[in-house]
Amino acid sequence: NDITDNEAFKALLAAKKSAEENNVLVNIAVVDAGANLKAFIRMDESYLGSIDVAIKKAKTARYFNIDTGELGELTQPGGIIYNIELSNNGLVSFPGGLPIKNKEGKIIGAIGVSGGTIEQDRAIATIGAKSILN
Amino acid sequence: NDITDNEAFKALLAAKKSAEENNVLVNIAVVDAGANLKAFIRMDESYLGSIDVAIKKAKTARYFNIDTGELGELTQPGGIIYNIELSNNGLVSFPGGLPIKNKEGKIIGAIGVSGGTIEQDRAIATIGAKSILN
Amino acid sequence: NDITDNEAFKALLAAKKSAEENNVLVNIAVVDAGANLKAFIRMDESYLGSIDVAIKKAKTARYFNIDTGELGELTQPGGIIYNIELSNNGLVSFPGGLPIKNKEGKIIGAIGVSGGTIEQDRAIATIGAKSILN
Amino acid sequence: NDITDNEAFKALLAAKKSAEENNVLVNIAVVDAGANLKAFIRMDESYLGSIDVAIKKAKTARYFNIDTGELGELTQPGGIIYNIELSNNGLVSFPGGLPIKNKEGKIIGAIGVSGGTIEQDRAIATIGAKSILN
Repeated sequence: NDITDNEAFKALLAAKKSAEENNVLVNIAVVDAGANLKAFIRMDESYLGSIDVAIKKAKTARYFNIDTGELGELTQPGGIIYNIELSNNGLVSFPGGLPIKNKEGKIIGAIGVSGGTIEQDRAIATIGAKSILN
Repeated sequence: NDITDNEAFKALLAAKKSAEENNVLVNIAVVDAGANLKAFIRMDESYLGSIDVAIKKAKTARYFNIDTGELGELTQPGGIIYNIELSNNGLVSFPGGLPIKNKEGKIIGAIGVSGGTIEQDRAIATIGAKSILN
Repeated sequence: NDITDNEAFKALLAAKKSAEENNVLVNIAVVDAGANLKAFIRMDESYLGSIDVAIKKAKTARYFNIDTGELGELTQPGGIIYNIELSNNGLVSFPGGLPIKNKEGKIIGAIGVSGGTIEQDRAIATIGAKSILN
Repeated sequence: NDITDNEAFKALLAAKKSAEENNVLVNIAVVDAGANLKAFIRMDESYLGSIDVAIKKAKTARYFNIDTGELGELTQPGGIIYNIELSNNGLVSFPGGLPIKNKEGKIIGAIGVSGGTIEQDRAIATIGAKSILN
């Protein structure tokens, strides 16, 4: 199973609405089950550097089926997978990337949000990921 | 002046609607005045290889403020800018990329479409680019 | 649908057997439906440069659901998609890459072969792609 | 001396069998004495991000003729080769990569495994590396 374009749009719009309500300026990326870019939006005045971070967060979340923030707990100095961020043309290992699951719990893609604090990015990504269940 | 996120969405949706009406499966990318990715959508079952081509078409159109198809007339063997495609981390020099202008005629971004024939891609890009004038 | 690891092995082995019978030394790559590497083998004494060519042939075939040799007919100087090889981190547009279809005709991956003549590479890729139907 | 294609296949299959018996989903890569990709398999449903990690583990193990886990002990902050992971287009410095030796103890290639815990990856890599001695 793979996320559809309409589901990807739905996730983008839900995440963007949440960001606007919280006065956060973010970039939002959605990748499909193959970790390929499916949908993207950059809010006006959001960081230019967050374009790539948002995309890499989404890809990282699907590459390893993980909350990118949880990945980061394992990649610190002394961590069991220290410096794994150097693989796959660059991973992001702090919060803001999440797998997207369908109603059956199967991972069908992932979302990445960048531009706010890491807590804000994660909260917005969560709202985007869950929006497709409605 | 710069394209807004709402205008970018509008362009994506107008282009996607046109593609659907013509039974073409495309990827659609919009970049801003700085040639940075602003919005993107990949239609279900469209070519995976068109993700990058659509983005590069949009960037190319803004890099040189040109219809990418017109650029291609100058880059052939013997052409005045032969092989310029090798610059800028890869340009695309066939139809499907167009600058986006505002009502005053100022270029505020660009759109790239990939997945159909080059004529279809250019027609869909034109509809997307013009949609923000309404 | 996506090619399985056993199907990918089957395609590799069928292609390798054909290469051996014809005294050709090749590299053989199989990618899945998401164009991600699924299986690979390099025959002893085959070209080192063919590792990347075989992988790019397989990816190209899946990126555009096409025989890579047919793609090459469109990318020559004056062709409608001249220089598209510069996209997607490098495409290969000569024979040896083919989509892999299941019994229902759905594309589930692709195979790329490099090391022989382009006719040999295409013939070996064809045998590999068809082997999973048996 | 260099690992043969049949030995590489043997290592892949032994590692894959071990992974299946332990219900671990992994990617397995084998490189030759020149650190060039020789054979590869991705098990169904294994991490997409492990494709590159498995290949980089194998390459790293041959680049420095070392267990990648031992390398990681030297690359931490303050370590004698801190951040060497940034060289060679990206190294992996946690367990799962091992040199492959022939019966005379000569290194003829390397194996990289990614997808399980680092202990599982190392155990599976060990079985793959030793399989060619039988």
